[in-house]
Amino acid sequence: MTRNDIETLLKEIKNGQKSVDEGLEILKNFPYTDLGFARIDHHREMRTGYPEIVYCAGKTAEQVVEIFSVMSVKQSNVIGTRADEKMYKIVKKKLPDAAYYPVARIISIQKKKPSVPATRIAVITAGTSDMPVAEEASVTAELLGNNVLRIYDAGVAGIHRLVDKLPEIRTCRVIVVIAGMEGALASVVSGLVDIPVIAVPTSIGYGANFGGISALLAMLTSCSAGVTVVNIDNGFGAGFCASMINRMK
Amino acid sequence: MTRNDIETLLKEIKNGQKSVDEGLEILKNFPYTDLGFARIDHHREMRTGYPEIVYCAGKTAEQVVEIFSVMSVKQSNVIGTRADEKMYKIVKKKLPDAAYYPVARIISIQKKKPSVPATRIAVITAGTSDMPVAEEASVTAELLGNNVLRIYDAGVAGIHRLVDKLPEIRTCRVIVVIAGMEGALASVVSGLVDIPVIAVPTSIGYGANFGGISALLAMLTSCSAGVTVVNIDNGFGAGFCASMINRMK
Amino acid sequence: MTRNDIETLLKEIKNGQKSVDEGLEILKNFPYTDLGFARIDHHREMRTGYPEIVYCAGKTAEQVVEIFSVMSVKQSNVIGTRADEKMYKIVKKKLPDAAYYPVARIISIQKKKPSVPATRIAVITAGTSDMPVAEEASVTAELLGNNVLRIYDAGVAGIHRLVDKLPEIRTCRVIVVIAGMEGALASVVSGLVDIPVIAVPTSIGYGANFGGISALLAMLTSCSAGVTVVNIDNGFGAGFCASMINRMK
Amino acid sequence: MTRNDIETLLKEIKNGQKSVDEGLEILKNFPYTDLGFARIDHHREMRTGYPEIVYCAGKTAEQVVEIFSVMSVKQSNVIGTRADEKMYKIVKKKLPDAAYYPVARIISIQKKKPSVPATRIAVITAGTSDMPVAEEASVTAELLGNNVLRIYDAGVAGIHRLVDKLPEIRTCRVIVVIAGMEGALASVVSGLVDIPVIAVPTSIGYGANFGGISALLAMLTSCSAGVTVVNIDNGFGAGFCASMINRMK
Amino acid sequence: MTRNDIETLLKEIKNGQKSVDEGLEILKNFPYTDLGFARIDHHREMRTGYPEIVYCAGKTAEQVVEIFSVMSVKQSNVIGTRADEKMYKIVKKKLPDAAYYPVARIISIQKKKPSVPATRIAVITAGTSDMPVAEEASVTAELLGNNVLRIYDAGVAGIHRLVDKLPEIRTCRVIVVIAGMEGALASVVSGLVDIPVIAVPTSIGYGANFGGISALLAMLTSCSAGVTVVNIDNGFGAGFCASMINRMK
Amino acid sequence: MTRNDIETLLKEIKNGQKSVDEGLEILKNFPYTDLGFARIDHHREMRTGYPEIVYCAGKTAEQVVEIFSVMSVKQSNVIGTRADEKMYKIVKKKLPDAAYYPVARIISIQKKKPSVPATRIAVITAGTSDMPVAEEASVTAELLGNNVLRIYDAGVAGIHRLVDKLPEIRTCRVIVVIAGMEGALASVVSGLVDIPVIAVPTSIGYGANFGGISALLAMLTSCSAGVTVVNIDNGFGAGFCASMINRMK
Amino acid sequence: MTRNDIETLLKEIKNGQKSVDEGLEILKNFPYTDLGFARIDHHREMRTGYPEIVYCAGKTAEQVVEIFSVMSVKQSNVIGTRADEKMYKIVKKKLPDAAYYPVARIISIQKKKPSVPATRIAVITAGTSDMPVAEEASVTAELLGNNVLRIYDAGVAGIHRLVDKLPEIRTCRVIVVIAGMEGALASVVSGLVDIPVIAVPTSIGYGANFGGISALLAMLTSCSAGVTVVNIDNGFGAGFCASMINRMK
Amino acid sequence: MTRNDIETLLKEIKNGQKSVDEGLEILKNFPYTDLGFARIDHHREMRTGYPEIVYCAGKTAEQVVEIFSVMSVKQSNVIGTRADEKMYKIVKKKLPDAAYYPVARIISIQKKKPSVPATRIAVITAGTSDMPVAEEASVTAELLGNNVLRIYDAGVAGIHRLVDKLPEIRTCRVIVVIAGMEGALASVVSGLVDIPVIAVPTSIGYGANFGGISALLAMLTSCSAGVTVVNIDNGFGAGFCASMINRMK
Repeated sequence: MTRNDIETLLKEIKNGQKSVDEGLEILKNFPYTDLGFARIDHHREMRTGYPEIVYCAGKTAEQVVEIFSVMSVKQSNVIGTRADEKMYKIVKKKLPDAAYYPVARIISIQKKKPSVPATRIAVITAGTSDMPVAEEASVTAELLGNNVLRIYDAGVAGIHRLVDKLPEIRTCRVIVVIAGMEGALASVVSGLVDIPVIAVPTSIGYGANFGGISALLAMLTSCSAGVTVVNIDNGFGAGFCASMINRMK
Repeated sequence: MTRNDIETLLKEIKNGQKSVDEGLEILKNFPYTDLGFARIDHHREMRTGYPEIVYCAGKTAEQVVEIFSVMSVKQSNVIGTRADEKMYKIVKKKLPDAAYYPVARIISIQKKKPSVPATRIAVITAGTSDMPVAEEASVTAELLGNNVLRIYDAGVAGIHRLVDKLPEIRTCRVIVVIAGMEGALASVVSGLVDIPVIAVPTSIGYGANFGGISALLAMLTSCSAGVTVVNIDNGFGAGFCASMINRMK
Repeated sequence: MTRNDIETLLKEIKNGQKSVDEGLEILKNFPYTDLGFARIDHHREMRTGYPEIVYCAGKTAEQVVEIFSVMSVKQSNVIGTRADEKMYKIVKKKLPDAAYYPVARIISIQKKKPSVPATRIAVITAGTSDMPVAEEASVTAELLGNNVLRIYDAGVAGIHRLVDKLPEIRTCRVIVVIAGMEGALASVVSGLVDIPVIAVPTSIGYGANFGGISALLAMLTSCSAGVTVVNIDNGFGAGFCASMINRMK
Repeated sequence: MTRNDIETLLKEIKNGQKSVDEGLEILKNFPYTDLGFARIDHHREMRTGYPEIVYCAGKTAEQVVEIFSVMSVKQSNVIGTRADEKMYKIVKKKLPDAAYYPVARIISIQKKKPSVPATRIAVITAGTSDMPVAEEASVTAELLGNNVLRIYDAGVAGIHRLVDKLPEIRTCRVIVVIAGMEGALASVVSGLVDIPVIAVPTSIGYGANFGGISALLAMLTSCSAGVTVVNIDNGFGAGFCASMINRMK
Repeated sequence: MTRNDIETLLKEIKNGQKSVDEGLEILKNFPYTDLGFARIDHHREMRTGYPEIVYCAGKTAEQVVEIFSVMSVKQSNVIGTRADEKMYKIVKKKLPDAAYYPVARIISIQKKKPSVPATRIAVITAGTSDMPVAEEASVTAELLGNNVLRIYDAGVAGIHRLVDKLPEIRTCRVIVVIAGMEGALASVVSGLVDIPVIAVPTSIGYGANFGGISALLAMLTSCSAGVTVVNIDNGFGAGFCASMINRMK
Repeated sequence: MTRNDIETLLKEIKNGQKSVDEGLEILKNFPYTDLGFARIDHHREMRTGYPEIVYCAGKTAEQVVEIFSVMSVKQSNVIGTRADEKMYKIVKKKLPDAAYYPVARIISIQKKKPSVPATRIAVITAGTSDMPVAEEASVTAELLGNNVLRIYDAGVAGIHRLVDKLPEIRTCRVIVVIAGMEGALASVVSGLVDIPVIAVPTSIGYGANFGGISALLAMLTSCSAGVTVVNIDNGFGAGFCASMINRMK
Repeated sequence: MTRNDIETLLKEIKNGQKSVDEGLEILKNFPYTDLGFARIDHHREMRTGYPEIVYCAGKTAEQVVEIFSVMSVKQSNVIGTRADEKMYKIVKKKLPDAAYYPVARIISIQKKKPSVPATRIAVITAGTSDMPVAEEASVTAELLGNNVLRIYDAGVAGIHRLVDKLPEIRTCRVIVVIAGMEGALASVVSGLVDIPVIAVPTSIGYGANFGGISALLAMLTSCSAGVTVVNIDNGFGAGFCASMINRMK
Repeated sequence: MTRNDIETLLKEIKNGQKSVDEGLEILKNFPYTDLGFARIDHHREMRTGYPEIVYCAGKTAEQVVEIFSVMSVKQSNVIGTRADEKMYKIVKKKLPDAAYYPVARIISIQKKKPSVPATRIAVITAGTSDMPVAEEASVTAELLGNNVLRIYDAGVAGIHRLVDKLPEIRTCRVIVVIAGMEGALASVVSGLVDIPVIAVPTSIGYGANFGGISALLAMLTSCSAGVTVVNIDNGFGAGFCASMINRMK
């Protein structure tokens, strides 16, 4: 509920259009549907313009289907992240509109197409193995209404593979850099452009990579101002934030 | 053995009703049955009023059955935690009174119903995926003789989903807050009420969650006084402590 | 503001006794005084019956004096933790009612004495060096209105030093156990009584103690149900929680 | 050098306006002044519109003065971070235009005022002790040409101290949230608004805070999409990124 | 080779009984058989009286069989640790003398029985789940020629289960204490006796146990002098050291 | 491209032999083939004399085949590391020249044999279980054109197994030492020779080995100057660096 | 109290020589003197033959003096560890018998000389900087009644400095090995002898030594059976355990 | 002693020129001088051609002077690392030949100048603050007989400051890269050249740099083959290894 809604509600109570008890009821029941195991926040899309996001990994297929169904009734766009193919098939049976992006592991139901701004988001990876995380970022951004420039496998060990793409990168409004190992790509890219960089450490690598900690620490301690960081392998979060910035007016 | 028992024993020795050797024997043999691989503490329930708790995860099904059987003979209530369905079926064959709570992963044999106080325990989770830990806490508390108010999926990213439940929460005597990820829910709940909060970090999440460490540290460093913490995913411990406080006279 | 206050406010708006704008104003301005660098929550004591707690360590003496002064005007009890003697002297000059507990490092202004329940809190330490943390817990509990049973230097390496105190400990309603090193005392005490134990790891020790992590981990993984844990050296938090439980009706 | 400059340079070589050796010379000598211990990048401001930033903490006062002097000659704006008062006085003697922000620990020389956009940056802290980091963020943003809305001491333990500021916060284009301890404020703020949040963990706190790691992990694992994170205590980085986003066209 | 052997060798060279080249040959070829993938140290048993120990976990079944075969020819006793049943069956086929201890996961070939001293080694565990590590320690000690007193499941949460065994424990020459979780048992036992305690942390437990780190740190920081520690789950090492001390003259 | 190539290119542009646009095209398109998911750097071999290395572990079999095919066309030698047998069979079907080293997990296509210098590289392991890492180092070095002296299972617990090999080791130009557990072998070898030692920690071991961290830290803190370290289990990196040094002129 | 004392006590109660209340009194009051801040365990020396050990580091000089005074009255030997010179001077004033070992940082009052067995303890360090820890171990062992063979600065980077001492080392009954950095010396010594090795990691070193963790982990993961470990810098613990083993009959 | 010396010794014994006892004496007494607190290895320089290195940080000024004096007598070159100015002044008084390098913190006595090869070592730092570590590396290399190319403050945030130096860097035989923060410079340099890179992480930085761990992990996980790593801030080790490689024939 927006501040306006609250003001309106208070006015209606003042005018006697609503009783105090009604007011309390509205404030309590409006924003979500309680499924017992989950509380769906219909309110969020109205408030933010973004669809509801469902993190599927910790949920049973049955729970995911039920959440998607409730949302579907309300004509919301839905994005389900970390969903495997098996979960998708169960959802698809019940909700034939559902689409699946296998590399990104995303289920999507899109009831209405979002508008797309003229500026773009660049999604750059250091290696081929970073692709699942990169696709999660790219598909998230696209579903939220953005055009994405994908540049994959441009690690610092062969920096010339990045340099020829710089003019195109410089036309973007925000950059997502995805790298495992030593995560140096975020610093290098940020040092070459003057655009906000959202860095995503990945768990790619072995030994002292420690499931992404090396890349995470490297990105946090980047000597190049202009880099902010999201969680290890959190392609979704990076795509979501990049969309927020790219769609800014 | 209570202090009274010890005093009685010493008196009987003084009076010659018991010999010194008998006294040593009683002190040594009374409190437990030695199964070789386990020493069952019959003493505990007499002393505490709580049933014996068996942590099943590190034991073979045969060991668990034997422990349950010995206890069963003594007419004790028994709670077995971290038990899978397969283990339950083996126990059930030998001990038909056994009941199973699949989400909580608890086997229970309840020979006598405990009394239940008027006050309640609130069990609140941040997300749907925290449910197994929450159910372990809730079922433990119920088996020990408490009424539980369950509020699941009320994370801080949509705080209004919590706020309408506050009046009901405030009537409880103690709150268990269960959260993974950044574990912020414990601080937020504790800041809104004046009731002891037992926080359970869960291993839900990925990347820099590190199997629950993020939530654990966040809960330990909570800026809100009134929060104490148990081990990661330790729903049982939280339910047990909450019961101790709720059943307090 | 309690739920009642909110209902009353809404009713007054409905009846025209208050305008909508007045309602918004009240909701916004009531609960705290904004000093620029700090927002003092007068609301808390009314709501909770506990005085406001000021964590002094990260603040300048000037900031602490100003916060105490504002509170003093409102006739609140105030507790300032982690305050050194120098800070106390500056506060004392301005507010002659202020008292200082040097081992506990607490400044207190007590305008009205709280009632004290019949039950007690036991505060037990493993070693002499744990005394500053123990006194922080004990003094906090006393200032909040509790009687405290102090048992210091009763570590597990000489368990007989604890055993003779058990009858007295068993009469308490809640126990605070404070230990550095391997933190075993919490498990041992909890195994001997049937009372909630709040464990405080301390940074006492050297080498692989790692500033309290050894004790913290040991307490979190206690094999004895009934133990909850607060942050390393957090005597205040333990005293506060113990008071909550001891003063429970 | 921009792509245009390189194209121009290549054209001049083609036309014979510049020799190959001259071309190599220009490419090599243009962008920085080599002081031996430091290489000052004059090129950066031309390219980015931002002044050169000097991280003073690891440098001697003599080195800082020399760097400032060289820049001063080139009429650049300069920002020196992590500078103590002593260093400032030495700089001031040589360069009387230098100004000092003691809480933020910043030395600034501003030869030309940057334009300031209509939108604002909100800088919110959880506690009073987070002020030095917050001021580093705020002053950085202001020197780079932004208006800042400061809201200090609004931690989650008393959430009503934040709520009344929400309407004002919602008018900002980007939010910097600064918190130590459990760092929950970033999630809570991000859940209440639909604006990018840059989270800064601080080393404020004790025990299991581990110099800011608790807050860092909590912010990285935030369950609220829309949060990106910078290094512990990195107020400058947050202010710089926030400025990038706020000044975006 | 003992010091005597070296002196003898040098004397033979002096007397001309051996050439210098022969001397070098002997020094080089004597002590081990080179299988390419492994270098078997026949020398060790002669020197120490202990059989060769083979750590099977990182080796293929073929490698283990070949090592056992070479040793067998030399009439040495052999102990193979961390061997699963499958590996044992392959060894058994080739070497029918091999015996297997399934809980301890040890393969043994005993060509000659070692003498057994009158004193005993106590092996005490905190829980039932610690049994595999305890059996590795006990069987190792027995195969090296020791009598073992096994006391399993005597954790600190029910200390009376330990106390009645104290008189028997006090007759032992060295104690192995095996515990996961908070590892408090080592401190408690060491505080009750005046006998060297070798502590073995186990990876039993969950959450903040971190695969045995909690117990390891607790044992290292034991406030009770007289405790030394071996690696997590290293029952073999504890049994071997205990045997060294128990067999001491 | 070498500096010479760049000078030549600039000269051709000056002379009008190439247009500016052609220059930019060459600089951009020359060095790699873009497969979408990977950017193959043909440039590297020309520049360095080393073949392209493909890290297979994070890639699908299809991606690996495609990369090998493109390289094969260009007549480059290719080395694929961390490839399992299944992947090899798929590659073999398409490219019959491919060879496989199962212990080293390396696929190789060798179009032209490299020259081999007279000096050798020693590869020494502490245990049998370190063999896969050692073979990765040895085979890498051999494929890059070096002779290797293999000494496996020469751990410090039986130092005489190493000593007789010292004369041969001393004839090598560089030594690779591979050890898990406590990693002491690197220090010991380095103390006995005056040759650069490249140390490879392995994840062999259990308990407090923590997947190789113990060995890694031990090697980094080696009290013997002359030791440098590569990542845990990184046999390839060690073989590659050793080859760089051994082939040095 | 020994088992005999308890039996005697029980008999006296049975015979009516002691009342029950007297029995309880004796059990409670016998073993220690309660100083308020410390509970001195007079019982320990009687039971163990070892003097009381006072860990001085966390105590005020006044507390240490008072503890020493009480003990002195009882004619016990006392050892105070981690005491600086200043503390010693205060103790000396009150108790002129006190002696000080400055490198070992030990205060000692020796009322009666302990007997000394024929066998010796070897104390070996890797470097000169390990001397304070080594002296703490050596002086502790000497005060408890042992002869010590000191071999300092014999690190693995120059193993020949150790080898010539081997015959003498082999005559000892137990060895204490003290090393920082990579801690390899424990493994190397243990591989050369057949005597129990107690390893003490020290915090000597820099960078990835992490205050002794590198050495600690290396010692715990030693590939040489026969090594047990005490806490970082815990010279006292090592000396105490070594004494236990050396004085064994 | 070289292998030749040992052969000669054995021959002399055979010929009767030396007795067996004399042989043992020589082997034992030859290689070092025992100062009690230190064992000086005169043998090392003879064997390696390198001077003895003294790590001064953990030693008293008196110990350092005594070590230098003994060496001085033997006409050895000596290098003392981590020595502060105060220590130097004490050494200088006794040994007037001593020279001091204040930024590198090195004391040197050079009795004979080493030969210097034609090839050079490049020492490159990311920032100005890395200079002390860089100077330790550079001065060490120079004292051991090498020419050094210093390039300081060439971090990846402004890569053009590095590029113009590439031709000169490429003429070196080995490169030392020194960087704190995210340590990306090692990967970037190694990707641009075909020369062995020795990477030194520094403790420069704050927050999640964790005293150099970020840079250390980044360098270990470098995606660029050809990088080996030494300990945090270990400029000496890097200079020593670089000298080994540069002076290689």
